[in-house]
Amino acid sequence: MTDKIDLEKIAKKDHKAKLKLKEKEEAYYPQKIAESGLKTIIRFVKYCPNPSKYMKMNITFAHRDLEMIAEAIANKQTWAVISGLNPSGPLHFGHKAIFDELLWMQKQGADLFIPLTNDESFVVGKTKSLAESRKIAYEQVIPSIIAMGFDPEKTNIFVDSDYPSIYNVAMDLSDKLTLNKALKVFGFNERTDTENPGTLFYRAAVQLAQILLPQYAEFGGKKPTLVPVGIDQHPYILLARDVAERKGFIPPAELITKFLWGFDGKGKMASSRQDSAIFLTDPPEKAERILKRAYTGGSPIARFQKEHGGVPEICPIESIRRYHFEQDNHVAEQCASGAMLCGECKKYGIEEVTDWLSDHQKRLPEARKNIEKFILNKPIKSILE
Amino acid sequence: MTDKIDLEKIAKKDHKAKLKLKEKEEAYYPQKIAESGLKTIIRFVKYCPNPSKYMKMNITFAHRDLEMIAEAIANKQTWAVISGLNPSGPLHFGHKAIFDELLWMQKQGADLFIPLTNDESFVVGKTKSLAESRKIAYEQVIPSIIAMGFDPEKTNIFVDSDYPSIYNVAMDLSDKLTLNKALKVFGFNERTDTENPGTLFYRAAVQLAQILLPQYAEFGGKKPTLVPVGIDQHPYILLARDVAERKGFIPPAELITKFLWGFDGKGKMASSRQDSAIFLTDPPEKAERILKRAYTGGSPIARFQKEHGGVPEICPIESIRRYHFEQDNHVAEQCASGAMLCGECKKYGIEEVTDWLSDHQKRLPEARKNIEKFILNKPIKSILE
Repeated sequence: MTDKIDLEKIAKKDHKAKLKLKEKEEAYYPQKIAESGLKTIIRFVKYCPNPSKYMKMNITFAHRDLEMIAEAIANKQTWAVISGLNPSGPLHFGHKAIFDELLWMQKQGADLFIPLTNDESFVVGKTKSLAESRKIAYEQVIPSIIAMGFDPEKTNIFVDSDYPSIYNVAMDLSDKLTLNKALKVFGFNERTDTENPGTLFYRAAVQLAQILLPQYAEFGGKKPTLVPVGIDQHPYILLARDVAERKGFIPPAELITKFLWGFDGKGKMASSRQDSAIFLTDPPEKAERILKRAYTGGSPIARFQKEHGGVPEICPIESIRRYHFEQDNHVAEQCASGAMLCGECKKYGIEEVTDWLSDHQKRLPEARKNIEKFILNKPIKSILE
Repeated sequence: MTDKIDLEKIAKKDHKAKLKLKEKEEAYYPQKIAESGLKTIIRFVKYCPNPSKYMKMNITFAHRDLEMIAEAIANKQTWAVISGLNPSGPLHFGHKAIFDELLWMQKQGADLFIPLTNDESFVVGKTKSLAESRKIAYEQVIPSIIAMGFDPEKTNIFVDSDYPSIYNVAMDLSDKLTLNKALKVFGFNERTDTENPGTLFYRAAVQLAQILLPQYAEFGGKKPTLVPVGIDQHPYILLARDVAERKGFIPPAELITKFLWGFDGKGKMASSRQDSAIFLTDPPEKAERILKRAYTGGSPIARFQKEHGGVPEICPIESIRRYHFEQDNHVAEQCASGAMLCGECKKYGIEEVTDWLSDHQKRLPEARKNIEKFILNKPIKSILE
């Protein structure tokens, strides 16, 4: 009897903690929207003729100036999307979510710019050399991006160290921003002993150069642009909008997607916590192992879960299935009602994830052959002549 | 009678002021040497088998580690010199002094690296665009350098915007220096409202990249290097020496030349004070006008000057003649003794300067044809592969 009572107690305590986490999670994003002056996506979805799956499911949940992009789409105007990442390891399903959104944008006519910031990886200490992060970019990141199905005609990938124009553009933008403002926005004043001149220049000039690059003459001059970011990068976009204006460009629009939960139950999926992530190059067997032992929104006691239901809002299994394999919220509903327990849900999740990985990895050899078709090498001469 | 007395008074006062300036000038450089821990050139000249004219005349007056360079010369080891400038206008005779010293170094076997920092010109606000300073580099600066007689086999000129490897090297060095140290050495903490991310990155990374470039694998790896600078740049060299050590390179030696006086009597010759300088592309007639109305170390009254002598130590006419056209101190002696007055001295000076300008300008068309032979375009791949 004692055993049974203790288990019941544990299950109750666990459930309560998960509900609390859910509450915190549900308060987090609306609060961020309120603080930042962004708009929720809901109204946009109502009026947009063809919103993305992520928008419809409120995974892409906030924006600024997305109306400008909708107008460009409606008028068949040229527009561009900039979405970079620092190559310090293979892509994981959190990245895939962003790239899925980019695929939707490309279908709406966007020219994609994908800077792979090996200089950032190095100066922030994620890799030991420029060479290491450059190698990761070509060997691990670019093939996975290509294998996701982008159109080479409308996709411009570049590795910072191999696209020297990005530094000329960074220098060209440098005088539009004071050192004071840069130090403040990136919180560098408090970290001058750990940051270096490269991180400051990367954040306050190279990053802006990437964002504003599509508006230089070589790409047809000023145009509507969109930057998908995490909510923590919102201040950088404000800075980019400010610099855009000083430069006579159109301030870029901003689109914000919620983070995917990590499998370790300790926050968002992140390369730095290996147990949190499934990488797109992971062998399916490894993915299966990670999913099997993953943290969930369920209960340690089946009977309890059947009665009280799980907490899908904080479950990495529900989240990977919803982001990547489902078109609606039926998984969450079945979980919350107690109709589907974690074992069954994980079984479906494992099937979906391992199938996807196998397919994706089969496409990698062909993708590797096509790298050159995707690499941007147009020099920016307009600022030098 | 009143007139005569007044003139005498004025002459005395003027002479006294000039002697005071001389005193200040003569105290300035020894004090700088004492403060900076540099060595005077005197001992080096004694033991060096072939010192330069500037060394013998104490115009190049201080150094650090020049012994390392002398050893490289004696052992016929490879060594390199780095001497850059920011292109914001044509070269003047102050620059020519530096290039004359570089010519001597090349004769001693040095490989010369001459970065033309058009990015610096732009980010510090000396030109309105990267394009403007880049144009000045190719049209006004490089031809004058070439016309001075450098050996294309041992001279590497590059314009920062056109030599992208310099930014990769700058990034490669970035993690060897904290932001804190960089802000302090360049005095940026007090100027965060007027400086920008580009000036910080230029000083704390690109400038170091230029100085350490010859020690990268592409140029044969670590080797003795020498940087000729003005005394005000001494702290930058200390920083470069520190970063060199962290990177496993040899800390660069340093060689310091006294500034040439400006013709306006307001300090060193500088492009920013047009009346202070004669540019190497100035028409000889313009140079003659500037020399004729130049400030001198002499007296407004001939009789007074004959009796008391002039003050050659602060005279721009004596200084341009000594730096560029004389091999000893006879002009200064004749001036100080009262044997030669300003009119006569200026006559010789005008002849020397205008002859040199005519010769130099005759060589410019040919120099323009040879620009490509001098341009460095070897990419630095060792840090990317």
